Amino acid sequence: MQIAIALFPRVTALDAIGPYEVLQRVPEVDVVFTGERRGEVRTDNGFLGLTVDAAFAEVPAPDVVVVPGGIGTRDLLAGGPHLDWLRAVHPGTRYTTSVCSGSLALGAAGLLDGLTATTHWSAYEHLRRFGAEPVHERVVEHLDRRIITAAGVSSGIDMAIRLVALLVDDVAAKAAQVFIEYDPQPPFDAGHPSKVDADVMQRVEEYAKARS
Amino acid sequence: MQIAIALFPRVTALDAIGPYEVLQRVPEVDVVFTGERRGEVRTDNGFLGLTVDAAFAEVPAPDVVVVPGGIGTRDLLAGGPHLDWLRAVHPGTRYTTSVCSGSLALGAAGLLDGLTATTHWSAYEHLRRFGAEPVHERVVEHLDRRIITAAGVSSGIDMAIRLVALLVDDVAAKAAQVFIEYDPQPPFDAGHPSKVDADVMQRVEEYAKARS
Repeated sequence: MQIAIALFPRVTALDAIGPYEVLQRVPEVDVVFTGERRGEVRTDNGFLGLTVDAAFAEVPAPDVVVVPGGIGTRDLLAGGPHLDWLRAVHPGTRYTTSVCSGSLALGAAGLLDGLTATTHWSAYEHLRRFGAEPVHERVVEHLDRRIITAAGVSSGIDMAIRLVALLVDDVAAKAAQVFIEYDPQPPFDAGHPSKVDADVMQRVEEYAKARS
Repeated sequence: MQIAIALFPRVTALDAIGPYEVLQRVPEVDVVFTGERRGEVRTDNGFLGLTVDAAFAEVPAPDVVVVPGGIGTRDLLAGGPHLDWLRAVHPGTRYTTSVCSGSLALGAAGLLDGLTATTHWSAYEHLRRFGAEPVHERVVEHLDRRIITAAGVSSGIDMAIRLVALLVDDVAAKAAQVFIEYDPQPPFDAGHPSKVDADVMQRVEEYAKARS
């Protein structure tokens, strides 16, 4: 079973690596990091290089697609190899999935028309451009359409565990969860704007400005 | 503020990328991926390449060190540049930290002697070799010794949020958590061997054998 994770310049690393780390625990799974061309891409702030091992043309029939998000997503939405590849491979996948603003790429590829979907909390409204109805859920599944979208960044871990359950079984999903010791104990209950005070959101804005 | 994440061949990607994704949200922070030499290292199963941007010699005085784990840890414990660098930089850090079996490298460098510490659930007993007392906790802090160890793989996310609180303040930590939408909702409560049935642990063993 081939799972393709589609990288691009200014990707958010955890969007991609969270699912990868869960999925690669299953021996039946081969994960391939794909992109427009082979070689290194740098993450959103440039601090990290990730390797694209296979160009899109070398990955014509993946069983599962994972599309991460990141600042660089905005450069993909007008069209080009990333969207062309998504449109070409989606008819043959078992599941086409996204994490964070990766759902905007699915939308721009025409795959979310008429569906509910999720994305990073900062991007809900952008989903409407593509005919999707944004919902604030951690993972949104449309199994009849083979589309699964996950919320911001870290949600790809939750999504990938669910994906293993769908692809193999619940025992496999729990085994992957044990491997990565995913027994989350965040020191704060502050994982969404709806859960924090105004001073935190002000800091979020300051930080976003400084890092954009 | 420079935060150095020490890579090596057969590292577990999420051990490194979880903390990176949290820490890099803070504009005062520069994250550098360091290692024995510049260039690509491959993760534990070889599916992913990560770039080492600076050799250890180029990172002589980091403010914070994060040591991820992975299968490759076992090749570090007998001694060499990785442990030499840890011993050299630790006296000058604000915090020296580990995720997963990364704590074994801290132990082998002599930094855990007489301390409680945590690691991946499969490696508790190995900690004793280095004079450390293994405990089953998500994050173990010894602030007087400037040492923080985190449990398996995904626990580095929890640890890094706490680290931002220590380095900056609680508002910064919560802001980082909002950014990565860390509002975990795992589909199962299966994040530790103590929480799952025997069939899951049997699957874990099968998968570990197939992927080792």
